[in-house]
Amino acid sequence: MLGGSAVHFSLAASFFTEVRVVGPVGDDFGPDELGVLEGRGVNTDDIERVEGGETFFWRGHYEYDMNLAHTDDTQLNVFADFDPKLSAASRDAEMLFLGNIQPELQRRVRSESAARFSALDSMNLWIETERESLVAAIAEVDCVLLNDAEIRMLTGEPNLARAARALIAMGPGVVVAKRGEYGAALFSEEGFFAIPGFLLEDVRDPTGAGDSFAGGFLGYLDGRRADGTDPNDATALRQAMAYGSVLASFNVEDFGTERVRSLTTEQIDERLREFRRITHFDVEPVTT
Amino acid sequence: MLGGSAVHFSLAASFFTEVRVVGPVGDDFGPDELGVLEGRGVNTDDIERVEGGETFFWRGHYEYDMNLAHTDDTQLNVFADFDPKLSAASRDAEMLFLGNIQPELQRRVRSESAARFSALDSMNLWIETERESLVAAIAEVDCVLLNDAEIRMLTGEPNLARAARALIAMGPGVVVAKRGEYGAALFSEEGFFAIPGFLLEDVRDPTGAGDSFAGGFLGYLDGRRADGTDPNDATALRQAMAYGSVLASFNVEDFGTERVRSLTTEQIDERLREFRRITHFDVEPVTT
Repeated sequence: MLGGSAVHFSLAASFFTEVRVVGPVGDDFGPDELGVLEGRGVNTDDIERVEGGETFFWRGHYEYDMNLAHTDDTQLNVFADFDPKLSAASRDAEMLFLGNIQPELQRRVRSESAARFSALDSMNLWIETERESLVAAIAEVDCVLLNDAEIRMLTGEPNLARAARALIAMGPGVVVAKRGEYGAALFSEEGFFAIPGFLLEDVRDPTGAGDSFAGGFLGYLDGRRADGTDPNDATALRQAMAYGSVLASFNVEDFGTERVRSLTTEQIDERLREFRRITHFDVEPVTT
Repeated sequence: MLGGSAVHFSLAASFFTEVRVVGPVGDDFGPDELGVLEGRGVNTDDIERVEGGETFFWRGHYEYDMNLAHTDDTQLNVFADFDPKLSAASRDAEMLFLGNIQPELQRRVRSESAARFSALDSMNLWIETERESLVAAIAEVDCVLLNDAEIRMLTGEPNLARAARALIAMGPGVVVAKRGEYGAALFSEEGFFAIPGFLLEDVRDPTGAGDSFAGGFLGYLDGRRADGTDPNDATALRQAMAYGSVLASFNVEDFGTERVRSLTTEQIDERLREFRRITHFDVEPVTT
């Protein structure tokens, strides 16, 4: 099944801005796979095909309630020896997302990029095996997106609000805690913001939801940046959290990229309005 | 440490409406304990003292992240042989909350009450040991408040939205799924509503948070009812969810009843405004 951080991220971000994807694939990544990205207008010039190589592979399974993913098999394959070369156009991109891969690779891409706003995702594997590199990578970006359990694990702090503050002290101005079906929380110097997940009766495959969230979140911020809005703007960040949630909610409705690749902006707008309706309340002072 | 469903509930609800508490206590529940309730104006006429008896007792511990409570010891004590007798004033109350206790006891109190809107809480213990009675009790109330894991367990449905629909099919028009630090979701015939938890850097004791939520939620609805608003009104239910969350957030800031007993309506209003600020976002259509 087609997946992977870059694929899910790019498709979600493509609704808001121009997306260029950088990374290696093997012979098994053919015209059909490229076509899914190009069908959404994603620029694939910097996808590097490694002859005789195999594309990164992940297989896992989910618990009863689909909140916890268990990894059964991870094969770095072509990522093991990847030496990133960014084209001039990719190097000059104003915004950069470093998908979940070895932190040293993320650092090399970061150092080649001229982006003014950069973000990264990571996972428990790198927290356990490459902690020092990961902390160095985190210090070099403006925004970190991680699962809440990973933020607790990385900082050794059980309270999420304190853990996020400890993470911000490592360098990034913005921290997003992904909370699976429970939604996401955003932390910055200004304080925090939280939204629940969009509740769905039909969840078929949570794989890629975090990357679709990141794609909606950063894609929206980049679209706003192109209109002159600072990606650190508090109002824009909140809206970006909502768009991220909406894209993640579409992602889980079907396997792989099936749902997001056929999505329309009208459907996104409709769900965003619905999301607002089911999360907002009025304030009235206590009357007794 | 003073606690228990009725105590936490009553204190939280006392900020919004007149509260009468019904239940048995032992000799160990003295003037100090009664004073905590009376200090918030809670009517204690229907608290029945059992001579030589001991008050209901619970002891537990929490996991690393304080999301999961583990029961170490539960002693029903005076609840084991309790035969509820409601005074005329309690019988005539328009709203009734049945705290978490044996479902058959909840049913007996429900059958003595003339309440037009009633709600109950329960727990995994009764789902496992008294399932049939619990289902009967649920069919007799208008609203059920349970942890999301308990709703899944009771209905055998892993998806929360479907599980809540299955629970509504058992009788109650309103279902509230409590999600610990992740907030709460509300389900009714009309659809659903969800809010995240209020994120706090200092969480000292989550015990009673669910009952404080229920007290804020139903207390607010009863205050609105007294002003002529139907407790099933969608807007009032959303606001009640927010007040419930705010009361739960104060509850966890200190042990036992320490924080809520000294709370002011101004502090509640201030946190509610803050809660709105950290959960609301604006909607703008996708521009690309």
